[in-house]
Amino acid sequence: MKKGRLFVISGPSGTGKGTICRSLLKTVDAALSVSMTTREPRLLEKDGESYFFVTKKRFDEVVSEGGFYEYAEVYGEFYGTPKAPVEKRLSDGGDVILEIDTQGAMQVKEACPDGIFVFILPPSMAVLRSRIVGRGSEPLDKINIRMGKAENEIGFLVRYDYCVVNENLSEAVSDVAAIMRAEHLRVGEDAEARIEKYRNE
Amino acid sequence: MKKGRLFVISGPSGTGKGTICRSLLKTVDAALSVSMTTREPRLLEKDGESYFFVTKKRFDEVVSEGGFYEYAEVYGEFYGTPKAPVEKRLSDGGDVILEIDTQGAMQVKEACPDGIFVFILPPSMAVLRSRIVGRGSEPLDKINIRMGKAENEIGFLVRYDYCVVNENLSEAVSDVAAIMRAEHLRVGEDAEARIEKYRNE
Repeated sequence: MKKGRLFVISGPSGTGKGTICRSLLKTVDAALSVSMTTREPRLLEKDGESYFFVTKKRFDEVVSEGGFYEYAEVYGEFYGTPKAPVEKRLSDGGDVILEIDTQGAMQVKEACPDGIFVFILPPSMAVLRSRIVGRGSEPLDKINIRMGKAENEIGFLVRYDYCVVNENLSEAVSDVAAIMRAEHLRVGEDAEARIEKYRNE
Repeated sequence: MKKGRLFVISGPSGTGKGTICRSLLKTVDAALSVSMTTREPRLLEKDGESYFFVTKKRFDEVVSEGGFYEYAEVYGEFYGTPKAPVEKRLSDGGDVILEIDTQGAMQVKEACPDGIFVFILPPSMAVLRSRIVGRGSEPLDKINIRMGKAENEIGFLVRYDYCVVNENLSEAVSDVAAIMRAEHLRVGEDAEARIEKYRNE
């Protein structure tokens, strides 16, 4: 049976990864990987939707079981990408989309070299800056730090399979959807088996 | 400037390569590679559209100049894929689609290892047979020879980058279009240059 593929969507903060993934899920048959976190759920957040909400004790258990592709501490809380749900879905033949920061993506690449890694770029640094400024949620010095971080992260591009420039959301979503469709059409290790199937008809 | 890519569409006779390519050209921005031939044009065939019609003398000149990716004799006439128009279009940044038989495709692969090779499969050998029979243009013994040839050609699948099953024309065309779109999104040798462009803004 066809095995599912893991598509890792990453790139600097503010380039629109989350927006692309949410929109993508309306058009492709894939599941979004849900991270596990120790932080408290916000009002109306359901467990298993945006996150699996767990205790620190449970989080540590998963760490020691080697149950995360990657995990990190962010502002005192812990976040990680659990392996089990992803592996189950892939072996059931379904695709998984994992939206993650660039540091986490590189850790996932170690654990899943078979994954397909897609880097989301802004049209330019100027556009990225104006998008972050436009959110109105960050003071100027924080924005400069963000931009410095983005400039550094763009260097990771070389380690990715594909690069999508998010100039227009709809086009960017179509780009990622094309990547997912094309990857399923690659001639893979099952080529010989497929040939035999035709010959043994 | 972005370089164009060569997409080679091949597979056994009767699987619908030609139909897919003609339909594809309505939706993608690419040029179909036009072969050169020594045969006479049929009524209403214009030079440079279905073929470049040349004399045997001119054809031999191109052969000795090494001007073909591949050429072959078919029923006493000669057919070849000229390099120059393809190379010009690729360096102008445009894509080229080359529809060709499996033997020709392997010769093109020698000359253009950068090309993207797409194999068109029928849904099954039984469907292929019924499609050939349905054309009503071949006697039974010829059909058996065709089917034997197809069975052999399917073995070439392992040398291709992608494989598209032509069950439904519209889906098959969308598959090839997705492959073309995705290939342009691959992180290539220009990755470092792209990174520099962002950093030097």
